[in-house]
Amino acid sequence: MAESEPGPVEPEVRAALDRLTGQVVASFGRTPDPRLKALLTDLVRHLHEYVIANDVTQEEWQAAIGFLTRAGHITTETRQEFVLASDVLGVSSAVDMLANARTPGTTPSAVLGPFYVQGPPPAEHGSDIANGLPGTPLWVDVRITDTEGNPVPDVFTDVWQSNEDGFYDVQLPDLDGPVLRARFHSDDEGRVRFWTIMPSAYPIPDDGPVGAMLSATGRHQWRAPHLHFLFGKQGYHRLITQLFVRGGPYLDTSGGQGDAVFGVKDDLIADFVPGNGPAPAGRVVDGEWRRLEFTFRIKKE
Amino acid sequence: MAESEPGPVEPEVRAALDRLTGQVVASFGRTPDPRLKALLTDLVRHLHEYVIANDVTQEEWQAAIGFLTRAGHITTETRQEFVLASDVLGVSSAVDMLANARTPGTTPSAVLGPFYVQGPPPAEHGSDIANGLPGTPLWVDVRITDTEGNPVPDVFTDVWQSNEDGFYDVQLPDLDGPVLRARFHSDDEGRVRFWTIMPSAYPIPDDGPVGAMLSATGRHQWRAPHLHFLFGKQGYHRLITQLFVRGGPYLDTSGGQGDAVFGVKDDLIADFVPGNGPAPAGRVVDGEWRRLEFTFRIKKE
Ligand SMILES: [Fe+2]
Ligand SMILES: [Fe+2]
Repeated sequence: MAESEPGPVEPEVRAALDRLTGQVVASFGRTPDPRLKALLTDLVRHLHEYVIANDVTQEEWQAAIGFLTRAGHITTETRQEFVLASDVLGVSSAVDMLANARTPGTTPSAVLGPFYVQGPPPAEHGSDIANGLPGTPLWVDVRITDTEGNPVPDVFTDVWQSNEDGFYDVQLPDLDGPVLRARFHSDDEGRVRFWTIMPSAYPIPDDGPVGAMLSATGRHQWRAPHLHFLFGKQGYHRLITQLFVRGGPYLDTSGGQGDAVFGVKDDLIADFVPGNGPAPAGRVVDGEWRRLEFTFRIKKE
Repeated sequence: MAESEPGPVEPEVRAALDRLTGQVVASFGRTPDPRLKALLTDLVRHLHEYVIANDVTQEEWQAAIGFLTRAGHITTETRQEFVLASDVLGVSSAVDMLANARTPGTTPSAVLGPFYVQGPPPAEHGSDIANGLPGTPLWVDVRITDTEGNPVPDVFTDVWQSNEDGFYDVQLPDLDGPVLRARFHSDDEGRVRFWTIMPSAYPIPDDGPVGAMLSATGRHQWRAPHLHFLFGKQGYHRLITQLFVRGGPYLDTSGGQGDAVFGVKDDLIADFVPGNGPAPAGRVVDGEWRRLEFTFRIKKE
């Protein structure tokens, strides 16, 4: 992409380009679904305006096609490069903020991320989803309420996180089945309780075109440490969110060198308090451990 | 995508979204290549503005990710769904018009399209690149000159086109090697002459996500009949273009129901004149045939 910057577009060229944009918009004039028509029409306008404003060259267009092609070819059931691209461009976070604005009074959502797997293994309250993996033990005790603060029982609660080295189970082909990933159901008090380990900062996958883009632009690849949660129950809006470790790395996004996917929200930064007294659920912990308490608010449909 | 249209974005949500956009732009602040920095920064602004202006929902975002994923998975060496998507959205044509504006005095270019194959089989002047396939015989006699009108010899000239049923050879797995596809070199008068058949209108591939999008929007899939040309010679700008059949179908793009990829330009519509007198190159034609004469102008670098 390193060529001399193109000059401005001449008025008669601009007029011809505007006619082209009009023709493409007109081609969508018979779209039966009005929302689809509006989305595609405005997409055409934005794409054309981008190409024209930047006087995009054929070599640059070819580079974009190559990026998309490589992203498509590296994408599998467990690796989603397009989601990753959307994440590092802040698009996922923008869509997420718009969704939050539609459900006031609830806990803010956060991006799903590329590592969610449908149908995680069911787990019992009090069990250890780390299954003995090394790391600082973490006792999680969260409550799910409605927007009035009433506990909501029987909410399916999917949790997933990275291991001490910053990897998710799906990134480790030698692992024997899922780990640091489970489905709970909230009890009569709307509570979910389990042992795990402290989440680690981790780099997003860098062996695809998104990684190449980050390194070409001098951007780092690190995500602030977090736990993922997904809450669902018939009759309630689904909540997908993350909790971040207060005091942890990559929380400050103001300078553009924070969390690589722009996923941190102030209301999602939680205290992971050093544990004292006997460890819960009858566990004997040798050394340091932490405790996380948090209340999630979900909303009736 | 059929859900009720989202409402406008509240001012405080908009302010938070603007802060997000600023953070993403700032994250590209260390990009060494200034052109790459400008392109990515403006891409972020346009993507965010699009998502915000349309209050894009998570379901719609997921649909877009699904579209890109399916496009990636159907794309191979000989099938390029991202180019096709760019074509039907008029983006390829916009990039092409900007490129043309940079080389005044030359024949307008046109999109490469998804059916070009590198290194077509060499052919002799006067030969039949249709290799006996059915169709109306067409004698092509074109000249290549520079912008002053001087003939340019030894220009490699790649030609490719659809058969009578509207298929390119790469779409027909049973074919034994390339056909309706060849490389010539212009002679001392800058001329290239060969027999072929009249090109047919053809639908762009409709078994991928682009085809699904066209059918969901009531758009047709037809390209106006055309011949593809690619001209190259050391020291000259490469010219990629197409010639369209005057009087043929799908030429009128003003109503949005013309050529599906917005590839027609007035200067590229040529007369395919009914032949009379003896057929050239010693060929005996039983019935109707046509003659195409055209002068292409290419530019020194
Ligand atoms: Fe994560
Ligand atoms: Fe074509």
